[in-house]
Amino acid sequence: MTIPSLDRLTSLLARVHDLNMAANVLEWDQETYMPEAAAEARAHQIATLRQLAHECFVSDEIGALLDALDREHADADPDHPDVRLLRVTRRDYDQATRLPARLVADLARAVALGKEAWKTARDTDTFATFEPALQRLVDLNLEKAEALGYADTRYDALLDQYEPGLDTATVRQVFDALRAALVPIVRAIAGQPPPDDRCLHRYYPQDRQWDFGMAVLRDIGFDFTRGRQDLSAHPFTTAFDISDVRLTTRVNERYFPSAFFGSLHEAGHGLYEQGIDPALARTPLADGASLGMHESQSRLWENLIGRSRAFWEHYYAPLQRLFPEALSDVSLDTFYRAINRVEPSLIRVEADEVTYNLHIMLRFELELALIEGSVAPADLPALWNAKMEDYLGLTPDTDANGVLQDVHWSLGAFGYFPTYALGNLLSAQLYDRLDADLGGVEPLVAAGDFAPILAWLREHVHRFGRSRSAQELMVAATGSGLQAGNWLAYVRRKYEALYDGLSL
Amino acid sequence: MTIPSLDRLTSLLARVHDLNMAANVLEWDQETYMPEAAAEARAHQIATLRQLAHECFVSDEIGALLDALDREHADADPDHPDVRLLRVTRRDYDQATRLPARLVADLARAVALGKEAWKTARDTDTFATFEPALQRLVDLNLEKAEALGYADTRYDALLDQYEPGLDTATVRQVFDALRAALVPIVRAIAGQPPPDDRCLHRYYPQDRQWDFGMAVLRDIGFDFTRGRQDLSAHPFTTAFDISDVRLTTRVNERYFPSAFFGSLHEAGHGLYEQGIDPALARTPLADGASLGMHESQSRLWENLIGRSRAFWEHYYAPLQRLFPEALSDVSLDTFYRAINRVEPSLIRVEADEVTYNLHIMLRFELELALIEGSVAPADLPALWNAKMEDYLGLTPDTDANGVLQDVHWSLGAFGYFPTYALGNLLSAQLYDRLDADLGGVEPLVAAGDFAPILAWLREHVHRFGRSRSAQELMVAATGSGLQAGNWLAYVRRKYEALYDGLSL
Repeated sequence: MTIPSLDRLTSLLARVHDLNMAANVLEWDQETYMPEAAAEARAHQIATLRQLAHECFVSDEIGALLDALDREHADADPDHPDVRLLRVTRRDYDQATRLPARLVADLARAVALGKEAWKTARDTDTFATFEPALQRLVDLNLEKAEALGYADTRYDALLDQYEPGLDTATVRQVFDALRAALVPIVRAIAGQPPPDDRCLHRYYPQDRQWDFGMAVLRDIGFDFTRGRQDLSAHPFTTAFDISDVRLTTRVNERYFPSAFFGSLHEAGHGLYEQGIDPALARTPLADGASLGMHESQSRLWENLIGRSRAFWEHYYAPLQRLFPEALSDVSLDTFYRAINRVEPSLIRVEADEVTYNLHIMLRFELELALIEGSVAPADLPALWNAKMEDYLGLTPDTDANGVLQDVHWSLGAFGYFPTYALGNLLSAQLYDRLDADLGGVEPLVAAGDFAPILAWLREHVHRFGRSRSAQELMVAATGSGLQAGNWLAYVRRKYEALYDGLSL
Repeated sequence: MTIPSLDRLTSLLARVHDLNMAANVLEWDQETYMPEAAAEARAHQIATLRQLAHECFVSDEIGALLDALDREHADADPDHPDVRLLRVTRRDYDQATRLPARLVADLARAVALGKEAWKTARDTDTFATFEPALQRLVDLNLEKAEALGYADTRYDALLDQYEPGLDTATVRQVFDALRAALVPIVRAIAGQPPPDDRCLHRYYPQDRQWDFGMAVLRDIGFDFTRGRQDLSAHPFTTAFDISDVRLTTRVNERYFPSAFFGSLHEAGHGLYEQGIDPALARTPLADGASLGMHESQSRLWENLIGRSRAFWEHYYAPLQRLFPEALSDVSLDTFYRAINRVEPSLIRVEADEVTYNLHIMLRFELELALIEGSVAPADLPALWNAKMEDYLGLTPDTDANGVLQDVHWSLGAFGYFPTYALGNLLSAQLYDRLDADLGGVEPLVAAGDFAPILAWLREHVHRFGRSRSAQELMVAATGSGLQAGNWLAYVRRKYEALYDGLSL
């Protein structure tokens, strides 16, 4: 080996990065343009790239370089960029090397079987078809947690994959507070006469929806010289570099919110990726701090800004001009109330911003119990339905519309669900500080002046990439770690104003 | 090492194949959808993939497997699929390992500098700016030829990269015969009053051009479940698998032939890729036999079929209905003569099917002389202009419109140019046999019945991929190797009919 050098390490890491980014390109193409018959060949290609990226990363040379460089930097300033790079790389390397090859292979097989079993179970509404596969996935995740290591509970290790540095106890405590406050809020709103949202179901031609979405993405600062938007069956964001960020959306000509808020959500993710410091390009730091932090950016633009009255004070007149047949007889107030209609429902992905967190907490509680061993897969359907009744006052008509609705568990992804709700909470925390720092966000939004908002997010969140954890970023930006208060205050404020005389 | 196994070899080769196909996806995306600012990151990613593909391919393990398997199959039937796979893999392996790393690096640097120097020289019309870089590229190609090895002349080694098994002497002999016959033909046609092609320069809206091209591609058998067409600045074809073949075209609303014949040309390449036996997927055999053979497929569909009178007997009525403003007052005969207008011109890529081969022969003669050392780069401009005068009766106004017009030499690609003309010759050889075997191609084309034509090409050319050489395929399909007679007869037949009383 040559003398341990950070240059050598970064050039090896750049190779790993290139392979993963190439896999991202192939996955993006698969969802946007790939002809249907190519699925099998593409699966081979992606598997080869991911496998090689893994092999290149867990090489002995990278291990030895990390050991030597860690020693060399033991007394260095922990805020130095090199030290931050080493810390994140060490974390990734340990995660990638702690899992025995046998466990990785077992997990891959269990996921393949789990996905098939889940699909069949959902399509035939028979939870029992999925149960053995789910049990296997739980067992393997227990092994995985042991291999990865944890401080307090095995769920810590799983959560840490998606939300580095956040522990289960914190999530549980924050979610408990959130649930206690939120259940009565949802109940109170559900007791109100629902807003009339028929105007959203009128005819909105695809090309004009596309043009409107693109114009708004430009306005909020998405840089189309460093990214693009395409169509796909399910909206998503991916990045191949800070200079190449891809959004997708889908258009429903009979339901306006689908494409528009989907685009705005994905653009929130995309702005984060585009805002990472170019000095971090081709390093492990060129990504978001955590899934929750990423989701905070999408939710901030989608909900706190995009579903605000101020936003539509700016955009409703042009929207009416673009869709006169659908909107000429609809007032701004009616439209605003329609896009903020709150209604308990069975399906997470169709839930409004208020009830959404209850869907997540239910899943978190169940998967935590599965991992802690206090609940068995066979118990899930009954527990799911009981919690749905408790939190949302609804009982699923079928398991397909209940415990079987989401793909995540069939992929063995335990610890992922909470990040959706974390995103909501973090978005409100960031918004309140942004509001204070800018002397009011609403007047800027109402004037279509988004540049100061994006600049603030870049300065306090985006540019750091993974070089600081979500908790570090939150404390530095807002003075506080994760908490539910800001989001609850946002919901109370917004929906009290929306329903005359409602007190939340 | 495990015992030498063909399975192990094919699994290692599949990994190399996947890496190269992934690089193809990234290159396709670069030309079609990639945002402009992403060029640098994309260059890194593609370089990483190609470099890793090379490293994985030239590994000691593959070398040892090939040695052992070659010995094991020494007495096996040379037509056995395993033996054909081993032969092509051995050839590729020797080519990839014979070049010293120092030479590969020198070539890469010389190409990077050569491309820049060529661009500057072309833009400023100063050949001298390019001359030193060209000399360096010639010198390195001489070294390359020595490293690769050759039977007779160094140009053999370079030609062999693109046209495996074809030697310089054969090309020279065939081209000499072709040139001797073609120069007087071009002169005779140039002496005729030129067809009126003003109708081609009318307004053809982009979306209708697109729809027409797509409909014709479907008719001739391009399978859109295993491929697609997109727009790009320069038309090209690439494949990521037999199940995923991508064509591109460009549309000029003021010149009908640009998109349509471009699409037809690329579809000819694409049909070849789609026609390869699926059993060859993810092996080194999943590609065309040679560049010349590939070009024969594109030229056959573009020119011999697509510019035939029979083709437009089928398609002209629907074309007129699609573009009534442009074509309602234009007869089939006028249109047919317009798309077959022959005219000596300075620029290769704009040349018609008759003069095109002269542009190629000129380049072949000059690059052969460069490699043989009988001509120095400094001599090229004067020699180029003299040959243009000899062959086409024209003298370039500038070197930019003469010796500097093509990128190939600046990329160090000597031996590539002849494959364009070989494609033309092979297309006519195949067409004549196809015509005999099917009892007349024209009636089928006039009836829009392309299936028997495609089936014949699949049977005799496409399905073999690289498992047989172009020469083997030609002898098996037509009873003859490369020769100019069929193409010359085609040109004489077609253009004598097109110009009343002309005798060629």
